[in-house]
Amino acid sequence: MQSYLSKTHLEQLEKRQRTKLINSISGFKSLNLIGTINEACVSNLAIFNSVVHLGAHPALIGFIARPDSVERHTLENIEKMKYYTINHVSQTIYRQAHQTSARYPAGQSEFEEAGLTADYKNSFIAPYVKESAIQMGMEFKQRVDIDLNGTSLIIGEVVQLYFPANCLCQDGYLDIEKGGTLAGSSLDGYHETRRVARLSYAKPDLNLSNIISPYTE
Amino acid sequence: MQSYLSKTHLEQLEKRQRTKLINSISGFKSLNLIGTINEACVSNLAIFNSVVHLGAHPALIGFIARPDSVERHTLENIEKMKYYTINHVSQTIYRQAHQTSARYPAGQSEFEEAGLTADYKNSFIAPYVKESAIQMGMEFKQRVDIDLNGTSLIIGEVVQLYFPANCLCQDGYLDIEKGGTLAGSSLDGYHETRRVARLSYAKPDLNLSNIISPYTE
Repeated sequence: MQSYLSKTHLEQLEKRQRTKLINSISGFKSLNLIGTINEACVSNLAIFNSVVHLGAHPALIGFIARPDSVERHTLENIEKMKYYTINHVSQTIYRQAHQTSARYPAGQSEFEEAGLTADYKNSFIAPYVKESAIQMGMEFKQRVDIDLNGTSLIIGEVVQLYFPANCLCQDGYLDIEKGGTLAGSSLDGYHETRRVARLSYAKPDLNLSNIISPYTE
Repeated sequence: MQSYLSKTHLEQLEKRQRTKLINSISGFKSLNLIGTINEACVSNLAIFNSVVHLGAHPALIGFIARPDSVERHTLENIEKMKYYTINHVSQTIYRQAHQTSARYPAGQSEFEEAGLTADYKNSFIAPYVKESAIQMGMEFKQRVDIDLNGTSLIIGEVVQLYFPANCLCQDGYLDIEKGGTLAGSSLDGYHETRRVARLSYAKPDLNLSNIISPYTE
């Protein structure tokens, strides 16, 4: 049976119920840990489920930040230091990743508190998550404020990229499922995936076929 | 073994390889069909993998549009008609959903061409996808242009919401996995999911527990 809720129904829901429901309906979410550092060299790590592809030429990735929330340190560090990392949440670290959303006092690093390892490498100023299989070093490009609800779209360019060599396909597709990356739902759901298919480029009056691209190694 | 690509390496990749790789690295993606109609009552349907949660109070959802692409009709219709629908892509319709990305001539509806059913209901002007289990009626709120690469963030408010009654949990979590919703990867990957856990609200010095919230029916 189908349920229906109008805007009025939605507004009348108890606040936490409404938050969980509305967070569910956009579909599955990316799950990433964003690593930053401040001027006093205190590292910060926070889980985000709003990382979104913006473009490949140049390679731009965005995420939504709520400036008045626990995510405030992430945003402050990015705007001041200009560099940050984005690290995939995988099966082996999803509980530690979730724990980074706790509200720790300033001066404490979520890396230590959640049990993850800050990895400084390749002259990059911001810390990577050592336990994450797919890692990006990002250069901050632009903050776009969304006046409607006080959130911001934070845009950066990919300047470093690390991934397991055996996950790359010859056509450029990176098999993040093979890399152990999880998908998210609502505010607290963590999901493994099983690929059903990759589908060929769609054209009018042409049947779709399944793409099979060999791994590069 | 870990592979590393610098910004320079990324820029030197063959263009289609680069597009597939960069589209892979943001993580898993939501998969939604956006339904619109124009003033001549021609319906339009297009698949988007960039729908993102913006806020629950009010219930705002955004997506990224590339105004010079096949997505142009979607954007034109939304700006002119002010209402549109967002419909989850599920296991039973993922091939039809992918087919909507073909470049059909103006005047042809992707509903008919891809084999999906336009469902006009509850006095809403834009067509829902009948075969989709989770459907939202959206009111257009704002277009935020991203000058860095000519894309736009299109923001709307949820004014109608339909879902299978047996997917709603008592705490407000909507079990979209039970509803058959798929997750996307890169430009062409379709994935089923298996939930590993729902995790409790994180606090410092408190162990996480698994949330078990009964279905409302």
